[in-house]
Amino acid sequence: MSFTFSDALAPMNGSATRNIFKLLGRPEIISFAGGMPARDCLPVKEIAQCCAEIFADPAEAIRCLQYGATEGVPELREEIIKLAGDVGITGLGHENVQILSGGSQGLDLLLKAFVNPGDIVLVEDPTFLGFLSTVRSYSARALGVRTGDGGFDLEDLEAKIKKYRPKLIYAITTFSNPTGRTHSAANRKAQAELASKYKLILIEDDPYGRLRYEGTPVPALKSFDQTGQVVYVSSFSKTISPGIRAGFALGHEDIIRKLNIGKQGTDLHSSNLTMMAVARYLQKGYFYPHIEKSIPVYRGRKNAMMEALGRYMPGEFRFTNPEGGLFIWGEADAKIDTQELFSEAMARNAAYIQGSVFFANGMGANTLRLNFSNESPERIDAGIRVLGDLFKETIAARY
Amino acid sequence: MSFTFSDALAPMNGSATRNIFKLLGRPEIISFAGGMPARDCLPVKEIAQCCAEIFADPAEAIRCLQYGATEGVPELREEIIKLAGDVGITGLGHENVQILSGGSQGLDLLLKAFVNPGDIVLVEDPTFLGFLSTVRSYSARALGVRTGDGGFDLEDLEAKIKKYRPKLIYAITTFSNPTGRTHSAANRKAQAELASKYKLILIEDDPYGRLRYEGTPVPALKSFDQTGQVVYVSSFSKTISPGIRAGFALGHEDIIRKLNIGKQGTDLHSSNLTMMAVARYLQKGYFYPHIEKSIPVYRGRKNAMMEALGRYMPGEFRFTNPEGGLFIWGEADAKIDTQELFSEAMARNAAYIQGSVFFANGMGANTLRLNFSNESPERIDAGIRVLGDLFKETIAARY
Repeated sequence: MSFTFSDALAPMNGSATRNIFKLLGRPEIISFAGGMPARDCLPVKEIAQCCAEIFADPAEAIRCLQYGATEGVPELREEIIKLAGDVGITGLGHENVQILSGGSQGLDLLLKAFVNPGDIVLVEDPTFLGFLSTVRSYSARALGVRTGDGGFDLEDLEAKIKKYRPKLIYAITTFSNPTGRTHSAANRKAQAELASKYKLILIEDDPYGRLRYEGTPVPALKSFDQTGQVVYVSSFSKTISPGIRAGFALGHEDIIRKLNIGKQGTDLHSSNLTMMAVARYLQKGYFYPHIEKSIPVYRGRKNAMMEALGRYMPGEFRFTNPEGGLFIWGEADAKIDTQELFSEAMARNAAYIQGSVFFANGMGANTLRLNFSNESPERIDAGIRVLGDLFKETIAARY
Repeated sequence: MSFTFSDALAPMNGSATRNIFKLLGRPEIISFAGGMPARDCLPVKEIAQCCAEIFADPAEAIRCLQYGATEGVPELREEIIKLAGDVGITGLGHENVQILSGGSQGLDLLLKAFVNPGDIVLVEDPTFLGFLSTVRSYSARALGVRTGDGGFDLEDLEAKIKKYRPKLIYAITTFSNPTGRTHSAANRKAQAELASKYKLILIEDDPYGRLRYEGTPVPALKSFDQTGQVVYVSSFSKTISPGIRAGFALGHEDIIRKLNIGKQGTDLHSSNLTMMAVARYLQKGYFYPHIEKSIPVYRGRKNAMMEALGRYMPGEFRFTNPEGGLFIWGEADAKIDTQELFSEAMARNAAYIQGSVFFANGMGANTLRLNFSNESPERIDAGIRVLGDLFKETIAARY
């Protein structure tokens, strides 16, 4: 039996990471492949309490189980407007907020709202794999812009804007996936100005920004936006729970209205139970203390990975030192092909994601993404030792 | 400020029904406009219990709050395979089941998987408004096929298949939205054969089938499918709760795999809390007794509406007599324009949906959809009386 799928989806066979995740079931595998919150940083008791409260109040229980509005429950939009102030985004009304079933849904709906087949989208090189897939699902093309420690190479960005006339720009501004890098305030301001000058939509994706382990917070790129060209997308997946699927988009009301129309056509609205539980969680003041409790856990794991990388990796191995988030980005000797070595690493019970999948054009064969949030410091040390040995052996065999 | 939206979404300004719903907040309005379950048919206590049990078990609680698999939790897929047997769909494995955030998401993902811009999709005339919108969002075109009491006019269906070479056919086979009609077994079998003969995908949408108030159940169209061309989409929105967003698609594993890829790119997976709560609800045997308790409620409301229509409507008013579901379809005198009369009906505190929005080509100016599930028999009687008087006055003034 064979079916004729749409031109957009026919060539897509599932993301590399999702396929890898299926291999990670065995407990002896030390996995740096995912992007999962630590088990100890999932607020079970508090979410349980919020759900119980919803069902204990007859009117709230009915509101939860009955159909809701596509834009999301008002009390959650209200809480999100308050949270946005923390990153410098002010002056929002409810008409500027769309609740999402996770941040990824915002990326999908923004592409649906703005992109035609064949359009160009500019991205950081490397960038979030899921975004690259979703761009392909709209028959559009992602083009990488040179990106360094402080954000986009602004010359390369403007040159590519002029040359390719992209529909939109996508940037993970704080503790990027996969590199852990953060765009400087000056770089953000310049991006907002370019978006305005060329009338481009700029998607600022910020799922990790609240997980800062050191250094000084930088205001959101959206806070530099004077003309409504920037849409800010974020999520509670890394701060509360990924499993219940809660995220949001903030932007100009005309854009939010289109996202709303797009969402009507897919899941109609997010789960009321998720939205109402998250709103209660925020209202009850659980959010900030929980993050404060999570940060030392993640900082400890990050530091364990940094130390292990210094201790076990060959001298030419370079890696980022992120001030927060979930990922460290590694660049190995040019002789190393991380895709080729993956099965041997798995045979030795250590997993990572090959870096090439994060590049718009598949380069970066010698790079890899390392996640530190979901393994103990001891297992992080052991797993990096395995990878360090593997890389050293491979280099020794090839020179 | 103006933005350049995608060709697909630029012309879309929100569905007529969603806009009407915003007007229905006032309690004095007797609304036949929605498609909401009765308040008394939402199983608050049981869902509350299922959620509490999830959070009371530490391993289950973590599984709920952590990332999950795109295909959905295995225990829910298992329960859905059992339920499918009730409508004659057998031989399913887990690879044939995709959990969805409501049935609508399945329609969206199927269009994404199969339809290119400009493609033709055949639908019943009239059909589900949300599907027509979603077809437009893929820059495809819905074309109506003549539909009567027993299903499609098969001659018209085959003629249009030959003439327009559609990518897929969409049918709400049991207690259709908006007409309440049910396709006969013979009509279903013929559709499955046509889909197979012309290698077309046929989407069987069945959100209402479990709500049967009289007559004999008909096996699913999918049960007549010999070649894997039929995808069965259903939902727990009308039987458990629409607010928590739970639905599913059943089909050939190659199709389910593509839906899975599409879903990865939008909400990654449905809320674990929703999926695990619904699975527990089914496992604990709450499903069938709850439906048995709901059916007399809905039957009573449907009968109240049928009686009121007979009593208050002008003689030339025709209406369907569905054996189940949530809707009665009305066809008024040709002088009546239900869109034009809507504001006067609202001024008299009664609401419905104009029928023209359910036709692919906007015909049916004298038709309307009446929902009976969410008003008491007394209010149904009062509301239909208002509409009957309005129609009679309008006809008297125009002849």
